[in-house]
Amino acid sequence: MSDPLRLGIAGLGTVGIGVVKIVQRHADLLALRCGRPVEITAVSARSRGRNRGADISGYAWEDDPVALARRDDVDLVVELMGGEDGPALAVTRAAIAEGKDVVTANKAMLAIHGHALATEAEAASVALRFEAAVAGGIPVIKALTEGMVGNRITRVMGVMNGTCNYILTRMEDAGLPYDTVFEEAAQLGYLEADPNLDVGGIDAAHKLTLLASIAFGTRPVFSAIDLEGIQRISVEDIRHAADLGLRIKLLGVARMTGRGLEQSMSPCLVPADSPLGQLKGGTNMVVIEGDSVGQIVLRGPGAGEGPTASAVMADVADLARGLRIPPFGQPAATLVEVTAARATAAKPFYMRMTLVDRPGALARVAAALGDAGISIDRMRQHGHEGTDVPVIIVTHKTTRDAIDHATGLFSTTGVVVGEPVAMAIEAI
Amino acid sequence: MSDPLRLGIAGLGTVGIGVVKIVQRHADLLALRCGRPVEITAVSARSRGRNRGADISGYAWEDDPVALARRDDVDLVVELMGGEDGPALAVTRAAIAEGKDVVTANKAMLAIHGHALATEAEAASVALRFEAAVAGGIPVIKALTEGMVGNRITRVMGVMNGTCNYILTRMEDAGLPYDTVFEEAAQLGYLEADPNLDVGGIDAAHKLTLLASIAFGTRPVFSAIDLEGIQRISVEDIRHAADLGLRIKLLGVARMTGRGLEQSMSPCLVPADSPLGQLKGGTNMVVIEGDSVGQIVLRGPGAGEGPTASAVMADVADLARGLRIPPFGQPAATLVEVTAARATAAKPFYMRMTLVDRPGALARVAAALGDAGISIDRMRQHGHEGTDVPVIIVTHKTTRDAIDHATGLFSTTGVVVGEPVAMAIEAI
Repeated sequence: MSDPLRLGIAGLGTVGIGVVKIVQRHADLLALRCGRPVEITAVSARSRGRNRGADISGYAWEDDPVALARRDDVDLVVELMGGEDGPALAVTRAAIAEGKDVVTANKAMLAIHGHALATEAEAASVALRFEAAVAGGIPVIKALTEGMVGNRITRVMGVMNGTCNYILTRMEDAGLPYDTVFEEAAQLGYLEADPNLDVGGIDAAHKLTLLASIAFGTRPVFSAIDLEGIQRISVEDIRHAADLGLRIKLLGVARMTGRGLEQSMSPCLVPADSPLGQLKGGTNMVVIEGDSVGQIVLRGPGAGEGPTASAVMADVADLARGLRIPPFGQPAATLVEVTAARATAAKPFYMRMTLVDRPGALARVAAALGDAGISIDRMRQHGHEGTDVPVIIVTHKTTRDAIDHATGLFSTTGVVVGEPVAMAIEAI
Repeated sequence: MSDPLRLGIAGLGTVGIGVVKIVQRHADLLALRCGRPVEITAVSARSRGRNRGADISGYAWEDDPVALARRDDVDLVVELMGGEDGPALAVTRAAIAEGKDVVTANKAMLAIHGHALATEAEAASVALRFEAAVAGGIPVIKALTEGMVGNRITRVMGVMNGTCNYILTRMEDAGLPYDTVFEEAAQLGYLEADPNLDVGGIDAAHKLTLLASIAFGTRPVFSAIDLEGIQRISVEDIRHAADLGLRIKLLGVARMTGRGLEQSMSPCLVPADSPLGQLKGGTNMVVIEGDSVGQIVLRGPGAGEGPTASAVMADVADLARGLRIPPFGQPAATLVEVTAARATAAKPFYMRMTLVDRPGALARVAAALGDAGISIDRMRQHGHEGTDVPVIIVTHKTTRDAIDHATGLFSTTGVVVGEPVAMAIEAI
């Protein structure tokens, strides 16, 4: 048996302790599977005294994570502190500078600094791996980088924030408005300290940034993602969607189009009986499509101690076994630069608007859609009380630009009350 | 860039040609992702002249696959001939003897000779990989061996024969009996030359043998699987299952129990709204459960040129990148021997039987179940014409042994007509 692989763990929150537990519980199994022991030699965290539910007394302690990265008895640095800059970035760079491999779960850091870090890691001939950064316990980066390596990827989609999916599921099941369910989720401890990371779609967009980069060989550029959160989704839209056999999800979509890479994280409608439509509660799902394999769907827990630590250990084991792949699946220097690309792929759209109860109102809206080059697939006018008439329209395939143009025209009709809702329907 | 990896492909059927197409179409992409070119230098197949839809004129031809394995310009042998013995086994052994890595899609060969071949490969320090042998394009072996390496696996389940799932789906959707749909499938070319490989569950059981071995660190022993095909499933049972919110699948289940490894490939009922229950047509699905990660579900195409070739290329790329793992995820010498273990895990069972229309008939059956230690969860007696009364019973958790005991007792009651049907209900 070869020399042990000695880990230094920076960050002993939920995930860090999860890793400690796996290394302790499955020492024999890991040695058997990796062909060498995997050990922890040193740890670092903000507060030393805290009871963490795992015995860390056998490991050296460093107050400073950078000092941890520089220890002679640490071969591989596991960065689990989080945060896109600050200590996480410092310890990652220190490890790379020391010629040490890094495993991290830090999606924010990689979505922002991923290309620079990959470049530095490759120059130093060290590995930088981040399976745990995307979709928790689902081995999705492995599936994409390795399992589907023989494919040109055509589309990547996913529900990658369990909290948002929980909120949407609960809104549908209980018929409760967003604000109420948001409060529930907050009280259940489901939300990040900054809830906008969840409900604003930022956390999920970080993940999509990484997946899109690997899938399409492009530089990770977080700001290139067309981003919209779930805060404006109404129970009304959820119900209308259900009537149409559709379900609303906060869906990340990345696809290569004739005009470049399209990346969006936004509320979309998917068929209710599709795997994505069936996904309830906090579970994550990633759909990957390749030119040879067709469609692969991966489903599993997207967060939590065990699942995330499991993904960290997958990276650790790969390195213990000697697998060395560039961080984004191909050399950082070959990753193509992308610019922020507005969605240009044609899709059907769901629209909901309120019309005044006046003869010819519907005709005016239909005319505006026609002027914008949008044709109507289905239209439903629902029964109403009072003067406001709710109207649901499903368009044939069109673009987000055409939809925006149409909603601009609506304001000149004098018959549309308030802001119309428009969401893309994503085929699966 | 390093030296090219030179492939010799033995077998140019559907999958072999699929591999040729990927290597040709994605030469640049593969070189970028693997850090070295992947080339084909030589091929071998039964008949040289045949038009195969891909240009193989640039490759050396060998009539004898063993000669292919011995060529100096072949680094890695891709065995895609099929068959558990004969030429496939010969070329695999020849490659190992030459110190060359082998990639194969041959589930039958591995289910029977897997332990011997792994032992030989490890002794020769060569790799033997077989992602394409299980669930076609789904990177399930990778997920299990690498992605979930930090987990003790608790259960592996799957629908791994697309033809069976197509037949069951079609029986349900069209209300057609098994024999009719079997004929349809035969005419559509969905069946193996020996259809019993499909409908008898043998092909799927080969796959389960491999998954169970990797999951539980046991020697692959095909004969240890409790095997039953789909030939006896009736439309009646499919309908009754639907009434109960369940769906019948040819389901492989492997789980470690107190009494050892339980492995079965047989018709089971699963909740109709579960991912397995929702799986329609020829698609495959594998569910893997680990002690840290929880449940991971993988879904995708289980057969066909593109998907299977995609899985072959995943193995090829891993080897091009230098990943070396024992064939079954841990050294062959450490794989534990298993014996044929009858299912001992307690599960609810679905039973359907026909009773004579006589007062007290149901009471006798209930008494027999009680004598066998089986308690009843739900019972439905359906309306009937004539003297035969169809009865559906869902039991509380019990064992297959208890069920067999009960059906033995039924014959002494004098009220049960014909053979009762009993299928396990698998929780997901």
